Amino acid sequence: MKPHQALAFLFAFLLPARLPAFDAESQIKAVLTTQVESWNRGDIPAFVATYADDCIFVGKKLTQGRAQLLERYRKTYPTPAAMGHLTFTSLAIHLLDADVATVTAEWHLDRSREGGGPVGGIFSLVFHRQNGLWKIALDHTS
Amino acid sequence: MKPHQALAFLFAFLLPARLPAFDAESQIKAVLTTQVESWNRGDIPAFVATYADDCIFVGKKLTQGRAQLLERYRKTYPTPAAMGHLTFTSLAIHLLDADVATVTAEWHLDRSREGGGPVGGIFSLVFHRQNGLWKIALDHTS
Repeated sequence: MKPHQALAFLFAFLLPARLPAFDAESQIKAVLTTQVESWNRGDIPAFVATYADDCIFVGKKLTQGRAQLLERYRKTYPTPAAMGHLTFTSLAIHLLDADVATVTAEWHLDRSREGGGPVGGIFSLVFHRQNGLWKIALDHTS
Repeated sequence: MKPHQALAFLFAFLLPARLPAFDAESQIKAVLTTQVESWNRGDIPAFVATYADDCIFVGKKLTQGRAQLLERYRKTYPTPAAMGHLTFTSLAIHLLDADVATVTAEWHLDRSREGGGPVGGIFSLVFHRQNGLWKIALDHTS
C-alpha cells in the first residue's frame, strides 16, 4: 500500500467510524448556520425548511406543523425591519443517541426602532435525524 | 396448552412485542404523575428525582445538572404556600425513537395570594430512557 492509499483508507474507513458524535455535531451546527444565514437575508421559507414536517414550536402558544410555522413566522415578521439581524450565543449541543440531539442557545435580534427594537431570549431545540438529515422536531423559544 | 397458559404466553411474549410505543407512553405518563403527586405533597426531592443527572432546565435562565435544579426549586418555592397545587393540561407525548420522546403541556399552579397568586404557562420536556428508566433530559418552562 502506497502512503497516499494508506491515507485514503484512513479517511474513508477508520476516522469516520471513530467520529460519529463529531460528525452529528458538525451537521447540526451546519443547520443552525443555515438558519441564521437564511434569516439574515430575509428568507423565511429557507429558515423554516430546517424544521421537520410535523415539528412543534412553543412560543407564547403552541404551533404544530411546518406549514403552520411558516405562516406564524410570516405574520410575526412581515418586513425585513421586523426580522432584523439574528445571532446565537452560548450554543450547547448534547447528543442523546445516534439520531436525537438537544441544542440550547441564547438568541438576539438586533432591530431598528421601526422594526420593533432589539429582542432576545433562550431557545431549546430537539434535532431528529430522519432519512439521514437532521431536522428540528421541537423548538421552544422564550 | 391450557387456556390460562395460552393467555400467559400472550401477555408475556406477544403483546409486549407489539406495544413498545404504548409501553413507553404509559411509562412517561407514570413519571409525569409522579411529578405532580410529589409536588402536591410538597416533596421537591421526589419531584426532582424525575430528572436525569445531567439534565438541563431552561427557565428565565439555564440551570445545568439535577443538584443545581434541586437548589433552584428550593429557592424559588421555599414554602408549601409558594408551591401551591400543580396540574398539567393539553398533554402531548411524541416518541422520536425507542429511547427519546418529547412532551408538551400547559402547567397551572393554583396558589393563595400569600403564596404568590396563581401562575402558569407551557413546558416542553425531552425524556431519555437510560438503563431502562425514562428521565427528563431537558425541561424548558415558560
